[in-house]
Amino acid sequence: MICEILSVGTELLMGQIANTDAQYIAARLGEFGISLYRQVTVGDNPERVKEALNAALSRSDLVITTGGLGPTEDDLTKEMVGEYFGRKMVLDPASLDALTRRMQRYHPGKPMTENNRKQAYFPEGAIIMPNACGTAPGCIVEENGKAVAVLPGPPRELKDMFEKELTKYLSRVSSVRIHSRFLRIFGVGESSVETHLLDLFHLSNPTLALYCGAGEVQARMSVQLAAGEDPCGVFDPVEAEIRNRLGDAVYAVGRDMTMEKAVLELLLQQGRTVSFAESCTGGKLAAQLIDCAGASAVLHESHVTYSNDAKMRVLGVKKETLDSVGAVSEACAREMAEGARRISGADYAVSVTGIAGPDGGTPDKPVGTVYIAVAEAEKTCVKCFHFVGDRTWVRTLSCVNALNMLRLRLLGKEIPEGQ
Amino acid sequence: MICEILSVGTELLMGQIANTDAQYIAARLGEFGISLYRQVTVGDNPERVKEALNAALSRSDLVITTGGLGPTEDDLTKEMVGEYFGRKMVLDPASLDALTRRMQRYHPGKPMTENNRKQAYFPEGAIIMPNACGTAPGCIVEENGKAVAVLPGPPRELKDMFEKELTKYLSRVSSVRIHSRFLRIFGVGESSVETHLLDLFHLSNPTLALYCGAGEVQARMSVQLAAGEDPCGVFDPVEAEIRNRLGDAVYAVGRDMTMEKAVLELLLQQGRTVSFAESCTGGKLAAQLIDCAGASAVLHESHVTYSNDAKMRVLGVKKETLDSVGAVSEACAREMAEGARRISGADYAVSVTGIAGPDGGTPDKPVGTVYIAVAEAEKTCVKCFHFVGDRTWVRTLSCVNALNMLRLRLLGKEIPEGQ
Repeated sequence: MICEILSVGTELLMGQIANTDAQYIAARLGEFGISLYRQVTVGDNPERVKEALNAALSRSDLVITTGGLGPTEDDLTKEMVGEYFGRKMVLDPASLDALTRRMQRYHPGKPMTENNRKQAYFPEGAIIMPNACGTAPGCIVEENGKAVAVLPGPPRELKDMFEKELTKYLSRVSSVRIHSRFLRIFGVGESSVETHLLDLFHLSNPTLALYCGAGEVQARMSVQLAAGEDPCGVFDPVEAEIRNRLGDAVYAVGRDMTMEKAVLELLLQQGRTVSFAESCTGGKLAAQLIDCAGASAVLHESHVTYSNDAKMRVLGVKKETLDSVGAVSEACAREMAEGARRISGADYAVSVTGIAGPDGGTPDKPVGTVYIAVAEAEKTCVKCFHFVGDRTWVRTLSCVNALNMLRLRLLGKEIPEGQ
Repeated sequence: MICEILSVGTELLMGQIANTDAQYIAARLGEFGISLYRQVTVGDNPERVKEALNAALSRSDLVITTGGLGPTEDDLTKEMVGEYFGRKMVLDPASLDALTRRMQRYHPGKPMTENNRKQAYFPEGAIIMPNACGTAPGCIVEENGKAVAVLPGPPRELKDMFEKELTKYLSRVSSVRIHSRFLRIFGVGESSVETHLLDLFHLSNPTLALYCGAGEVQARMSVQLAAGEDPCGVFDPVEAEIRNRLGDAVYAVGRDMTMEKAVLELLLQQGRTVSFAESCTGGKLAAQLIDCAGASAVLHESHVTYSNDAKMRVLGVKKETLDSVGAVSEACAREMAEGARRISGADYAVSVTGIAGPDGGTPDKPVGTVYIAVAEAEKTCVKCFHFVGDRTWVRTLSCVNALNMLRLRLLGKEIPEGQ
């Protein structure tokens, strides 16, 4: 089955917003073994919508449109689809009812305008997809082996409708399922991961591919199965083999997993707490952990000590340390972490001190020089990094490496040398 | 002049990455008064690249391609463009030289492979666009009033080449310029901004449009002028009129300005310092300010006090306060801000305490209830907010509102009631 995505919207065409809808749909279609050859974006222009729809249907079995379903005159996707199939627009009483109730909730007592009613009209015979998150329902029109699925533009509405409604249709028209499992790998470069897994790339069941993220690598296993079959039997032995080769570099499983979620899970499992002492990351490390629901159980306090004075006063860093080796040093990182652990009473404390740039670099300590320390009851580990990139990138890599060092210590592992 | 964007890349087509290149180009083309009617994305497939290129050139004067310029066999955009215009691929010695030097820097002593040399070949007669950020140069091929501009896929390389090279070409082929100026507005809802500016929407010189952001509204003024003309004479009086009507709700000018940059500028101008006491925002507020280069002059320390114990121990919040009205209260926000100001010695301290969710809400204080306080020498202002959204959204709105309250106090203004 060949599919094409047709995105309709002047704000997309003009670059006012990114087309995350097309990205989401493209990624999801793969799960159903549906081939996607083209994505096309046009503005809210009837001629160009019509032309793009004709071209898409001439070469594809399924066209998925996004946008152009709202109440305004500009919104004309559904009407163009009706015209293509030669169907008149008819009122769907259930949609009108749902729309009326939603409008009353938002604008109590106000009568609904005629252009709002437009959202309850569909090409005759269409499969209607209710919109649980907005006013405009979607629909599917089928004829002679060709189909058009019409989805709303707002990403939240689109994703909800795709998940709740369109997947039912896709499950019916496609008998295969492509399953994927993502292994998240940190602390090993892409080429090194490739070398370790070289022979596994020849597997066809599952196939294996690598992707790069912020300082990390993702290994994706994929397999095509008949609907209803369980992929675990295919994935589990290959995952075990990858873990066998890469060890603790595999920090999590799942596309939506992050280093902070993995660290939070370990802290919760072990009933341990952490506190941070941040200089160049300036609160970003704490903010990342606290972004995960449930963080209040493991982080009670955290400190940003940007100035030398704050490092001494808040964390107890020694004046001699700052005078002799400076704030960006192994000794300062160690004293920051140990001080943060002492004042907070946390089981672990992690410190970050470095030069994020653009200014502040010296020949000795160029921009990107960052010391990270993890303090715990028995010892404190410190590691020096030399990151390459702008201020934001240096801070991003500092945070994820700090979290990874904490993860390794939670697992009882030594921090490896090198980057 | 009509343009079309053709994005080439299987990772784009499959939704592994978002097409930010197309968004960037679309937004920039507008500045040159060039009409964009379509964006098309295809994978690294010679037939579909060729077909899409033919279709695009049949209906447009200029096609801008992105991606498919690298060293691998899959990379074939340039070759397809050469084929379309019937030109053979010829070596550009200057590009080979630059490529050789770059490769030597990354892989000293290693001979360059043949497939890497491919990046120095271009359709005969092409205008070559050097790549300051990567290995693959771009090019422009023109014939009979049709042109194709070939840009690399990696966003950093693409933006740099667009800015340094392609704008020279666009300036030559287009005699008009569309200038825009963005006024950033905070604390006034979109419909209220619309009401205040209603008559200005009828202006044609400049035109005025509104866009919504995270808790803010942007008013965009646009005007078309001949190349070389200065838009200030058009924009300045309208900006003055908008400021006259909206007052300090206009917090900055410029598309890339942010609330944190605006606050940093004010702090730097006035030579004042700030410290934060964060509960539900958990370091995000400090991290946002420190993300701006130059922040070390205005923020020396900051604290995350997530637990009640930390609020008391670090900031001196009273036990009676926590026992009587709880941590999410006007009194606690006030004591947190005053404590943070006292311990840090900063001129201003801002505190945030609230319920970000998903848990922790009560009928009295539902998820989204957030108190923000600004403490300064003479007084402390506290305001209560009721945000609607998930954990991330509540924390995002908390940060931007906290910064806005600080901004108003830096301007000597009272914090208005309501949201």
